[in-house]
Amino acid sequence: MLPLTMTTKPSKQLETFPNPRPGRDYVIQFDIPEFTCLCPKTGQPDFATFRVQYVPTERCIELKSLKLYMWSFRDEGHFHEDVTNRILDDLVTAAAPKWMELVGDFYVRGGIKTIVTVTHGKR
Amino acid sequence: MLPLTMTTKPSKQLETFPNPRPGRDYVIQFDIPEFTCLCPKTGQPDFATFRVQYVPTERCIELKSLKLYMWSFRDEGHFHEDVTNRILDDLVTAAAPKWMELVGDFYVRGGIKTIVTVTHGKR
Amino acid sequence: MLPLTMTTKPSKQLETFPNPRPGRDYVIQFDIPEFTCLCPKTGQPDFATFRVQYVPTERCIELKSLKLYMWSFRDEGHFHEDVTNRILDDLVTAAAPKWMELVGDFYVRGGIKTIVTVTHGKR
Amino acid sequence: MLPLTMTTKPSKQLETFPNPRPGRDYVIQFDIPEFTCLCPKTGQPDFATFRVQYVPTERCIELKSLKLYMWSFRDEGHFHEDVTNRILDDLVTAAAPKWMELVGDFYVRGGIKTIVTVTHGKR
Amino acid sequence: MLPLTMTTKPSKQLETFPNPRPGRDYVIQFDIPEFTCLCPKTGQPDFATFRVQYVPTERCIELKSLKLYMWSFRDEGHFHEDVTNRILDDLVTAAAPKWMELVGDFYVRGGIKTIVTVTHGKR
Amino acid sequence: MLPLTMTTKPSKQLETFPNPRPGRDYVIQFDIPEFTCLCPKTGQPDFATFRVQYVPTERCIELKSLKLYMWSFRDEGHFHEDVTNRILDDLVTAAAPKWMELVGDFYVRGGIKTIVTVTHGKR
Amino acid sequence: MLPLTMTTKPSKQLETFPNPRPGRDYVIQFDIPEFTCLCPKTGQPDFATFRVQYVPTERCIELKSLKLYMWSFRDEGHFHEDVTNRILDDLVTAAAPKWMELVGDFYVRGGIKTIVTVTHGKR
Amino acid sequence: MLPLTMTTKPSKQLETFPNPRPGRDYVIQFDIPEFTCLCPKTGQPDFATFRVQYVPTERCIELKSLKLYMWSFRDEGHFHEDVTNRILDDLVTAAAPKWMELVGDFYVRGGIKTIVTVTHGKR
Amino acid sequence: MLPLTMTTKPSKQLETFPNPRPGRDYVIQFDIPEFTCLCPKTGQPDFATFRVQYVPTERCIELKSLKLYMWSFRDEGHFHEDVTNRILDDLVTAAAPKWMELVGDFYVRGGIKTIVTVTHGKR
Amino acid sequence: MLPLTMTTKPSKQLETFPNPRPGRDYVIQFDIPEFTCLCPKTGQPDFATFRVQYVPTERCIELKSLKLYMWSFRDEGHFHEDVTNRILDDLVTAAAPKWMELVGDFYVRGGIKTIVTVTHGKR
Repeated sequence: MLPLTMTTKPSKQLETFPNPRPGRDYVIQFDIPEFTCLCPKTGQPDFATFRVQYVPTERCIELKSLKLYMWSFRDEGHFHEDVTNRILDDLVTAAAPKWMELVGDFYVRGGIKTIVTVTHGKR
Repeated sequence: MLPLTMTTKPSKQLETFPNPRPGRDYVIQFDIPEFTCLCPKTGQPDFATFRVQYVPTERCIELKSLKLYMWSFRDEGHFHEDVTNRILDDLVTAAAPKWMELVGDFYVRGGIKTIVTVTHGKR
Repeated sequence: MLPLTMTTKPSKQLETFPNPRPGRDYVIQFDIPEFTCLCPKTGQPDFATFRVQYVPTERCIELKSLKLYMWSFRDEGHFHEDVTNRILDDLVTAAAPKWMELVGDFYVRGGIKTIVTVTHGKR
Repeated sequence: MLPLTMTTKPSKQLETFPNPRPGRDYVIQFDIPEFTCLCPKTGQPDFATFRVQYVPTERCIELKSLKLYMWSFRDEGHFHEDVTNRILDDLVTAAAPKWMELVGDFYVRGGIKTIVTVTHGKR
Repeated sequence: MLPLTMTTKPSKQLETFPNPRPGRDYVIQFDIPEFTCLCPKTGQPDFATFRVQYVPTERCIELKSLKLYMWSFRDEGHFHEDVTNRILDDLVTAAAPKWMELVGDFYVRGGIKTIVTVTHGKR
Repeated sequence: MLPLTMTTKPSKQLETFPNPRPGRDYVIQFDIPEFTCLCPKTGQPDFATFRVQYVPTERCIELKSLKLYMWSFRDEGHFHEDVTNRILDDLVTAAAPKWMELVGDFYVRGGIKTIVTVTHGKR
Repeated sequence: MLPLTMTTKPSKQLETFPNPRPGRDYVIQFDIPEFTCLCPKTGQPDFATFRVQYVPTERCIELKSLKLYMWSFRDEGHFHEDVTNRILDDLVTAAAPKWMELVGDFYVRGGIKTIVTVTHGKR
Repeated sequence: MLPLTMTTKPSKQLETFPNPRPGRDYVIQFDIPEFTCLCPKTGQPDFATFRVQYVPTERCIELKSLKLYMWSFRDEGHFHEDVTNRILDDLVTAAAPKWMELVGDFYVRGGIKTIVTVTHGKR
Repeated sequence: MLPLTMTTKPSKQLETFPNPRPGRDYVIQFDIPEFTCLCPKTGQPDFATFRVQYVPTERCIELKSLKLYMWSFRDEGHFHEDVTNRILDDLVTAAAPKWMELVGDFYVRGGIKTIVTVTHGKR
Repeated sequence: MLPLTMTTKPSKQLETFPNPRPGRDYVIQFDIPEFTCLCPKTGQPDFATFRVQYVPTERCIELKSLKLYMWSFRDEGHFHEDVTNRILDDLVTAAAPKWMELVGDFYVRGGIKTIVTVTHGKR
């Protein structure tokens, strides 16, 4: 194990930038296969793949801050349903999209696979 | 065969937790490939894969209790149609979802494969 | 060739059991890859795969009697269209479903493959 | 080459039998991969696969006569469009179906593949 | 290289024959993977696959003349959009179909693949 | 839950019958997707799919006794490696094959999937 | 049916041309999906796909004569095994290849599909 | 490394040519797998695949100028959302299409894949 | 975020149990899709899937301790090549297998996917 | 049809450049889907896809000259076997590879598809 030099840090702070075409309805999609948090009951790691799709209004979600935001759950305990809703809420708060869909696809636990799909607004 | 130390037990008691976003319509899906019960006519084992999809209202189904609940059928005798309906009823009673669909996909018996699809409420 | 001891017998008698949830609209599907009868013109064996889907009302079709029922055609001569309609009629008579679809998918005869799809009621 | 003993003969005579369930709307499908006729311009062989789908009224098309009927084109010259329409017409004349669709899928000629789709009545 | 004996010749003359069933709406499809012309800017060869679908009225397109017609572009310079529209126009002029769709699928040029889809009439 | 009438019983007794062609080297394969036992540490159910391949000498394994044998592990606690080796040993003891391979493919536990492959003799 | 003008004729005469590179070992493959002959017992049509692969010595098989040769079986009665061997023999006689493999893949007859593979020489 | 002789140059100048069939509604599609620009934050290369679909009015986009136009982004820094919108705007300004859709499919960055879909007008 | 109750803990301590069949050469395979550690240069999370295959001698690797062992890398910084070799070393030290192969399949970093395959002993 | 300005010309002159690593055995592959020549018997166009694989010695084949070389066959008449051997010979003469394989995959002619595989040297 090497000594760690952490040049970037996980952060709950989602950054946005001005939508380059605020008057146009268009769709931005992020596929995020690298997500891990902890089970709040056992403290054991959970893993998931997330997919975001949204139609921006005034602001777009900045990619690097999204990565650091997803990373920020690494040492936190969350139920599947809760963390999926919370991420949607945070993304909606940050970017106020016209429409957003978030799918959380979790790895098998206790022989059961869980997929949570949450939506904000209308497309 | 080793002496058994049973640290968890099967249970018909489904546990729930408060829906983290009660006002939002969203979908939770569980894929459950590990289910076995007994044929009520012959006592021989039956195997099935179940898939649950539901829109919660006030309560969500807790994953570990769902695992123990599915386990609880292991030594019971049930017809395919009956056990699928019963599981739906128990899940509905426990979580009172707005909508729920349950698909029971049973292994071949007598050269015939059976798939039972039951629904509660409207999506 | 060993001496045959027949412990179960083919039978046209379809058995049913009470629908465990008579007030609920739900779908039961049987996939039956093992069916053989005889060609009424040549006496040669015909083979088919059947798929039943139905919404029960008061009664459900019992799986073992369905197996023995399908077996009962083994030494009988039937045209493809006729036997598919007859099986649907017998299943409808036995279980009075709200809706039933039966697909008979027959093996190649004379270089031609035949698929017969019959329906009772509305889904 | 062996001396030929022809026990069956090609025939334009399509035979039918009474629809076993005349009051029921249902679909009969034939897949016919073995068809050959001659090019009316060059006399060279053409090959095609045909697919018939129909809803019968009073009569059903008898399978063996259909095979002999398809065979009867073997030594005749036909354009792709003509033979597909003619087969539909003959099948309609013989069985008076409520609805029938015929697809003729011909092998490559001159580097070009031809598919002809003809329909009678409404489904 | 052998001395060439050209027994057939490319030709812009599309031939037709009387539609064998003029009163019936049906679809004829041609798949034409062998097409080449020249780039009008560089003189270099272009390659494409064409697919024609049409509903004939009084006349059908004759297959061999279609082959010679497609061949006739071999030594001509055409832009992708232009040649696709021109072929549709010529086919429409020759056969006056009720509806026709032509798809020209061109090979990669400058790292870019071009697909042009043109339509005449309504299906 | 219905009262159970058990007409057949699980059994560790594997039955065999005389190999109909003892002098010929040939391969028999069984695919067994329905296997469940218990985890000896937690008492929780484990699930696996087994595949047997063997070259018989004097005796062949009887199919129904194999089913009852696999069933006999249902209420016993076994590690994955142990139960796979034990099943191979029992099958070898019963049938003395020239060669046998057994693959045990277990469901995910703790996020890890286990596959155990054991062999007896040479093919 | 149109009056036939046969401009080419089927022929058992296989033509060859000088191998353009007689000293080089290389492989020529023909895929021939259009073959039909008659069943010598019933006179009914049989259909097959043939694949030829060979290493030429002094002569190569001419493509058009191969087409006419395959056509020449159209009105002859042959068993599957016989016609496959005969075609190999004729091709070997005509071209004297160093190695040749012929695969005849016949359509289903009596519910059974037949594939015959014959070889001449060593590759 | 060889000395570079640049015979063509990247250019923001999109060229068009007159639509060969201005009164006809038809669709032109470009698949552009070769696109690279720079990340405006880090200066590192980004890669994407673009797909353009449009219905032209008076002008069509010239293929080579499109290639040089896509090339012109090679040494520029752009956010994914911005460059996709800008390319759409430039294409719309150059050709004034009735309808245009542009999909930018970017490679993984920070473990996240981004897809941006923008549209102009109605199809 | 819920307060964490950690009932199990990550651990570098690999546990083993006696090989149930020490004299038999057989293969045990573990597929481990859930692995994450940190990049030693940036401190950012890395993700990988590991596959272990080994032939045991006296000891077998216990599944739950393997899970906790893989978990123990979660907060450590490691290069891809290093961590793959280290895991192999630890597994070899713990179980002294006759042969072991470890494949580490890492997610894309800097647009590059890394797969590291290390082996101990001979199979 | 536009007036043609031919900026590049087809050419039988294959150009090469020095192999950057003459002492190393490595494989270069070209896939060439755009090839057309004429049938020497009928003058009609033939189409093929070519695949070259080779291990260079002192010289490598220059890509643009290969394109112009393949183009140079466009107006020449060649048999399939001959043109495939000739292209191999020309490539071997130009680059003197240690090993080269050339596969010519020709479009269907007379219902028959031809694939010619020629090799030079040993790999």
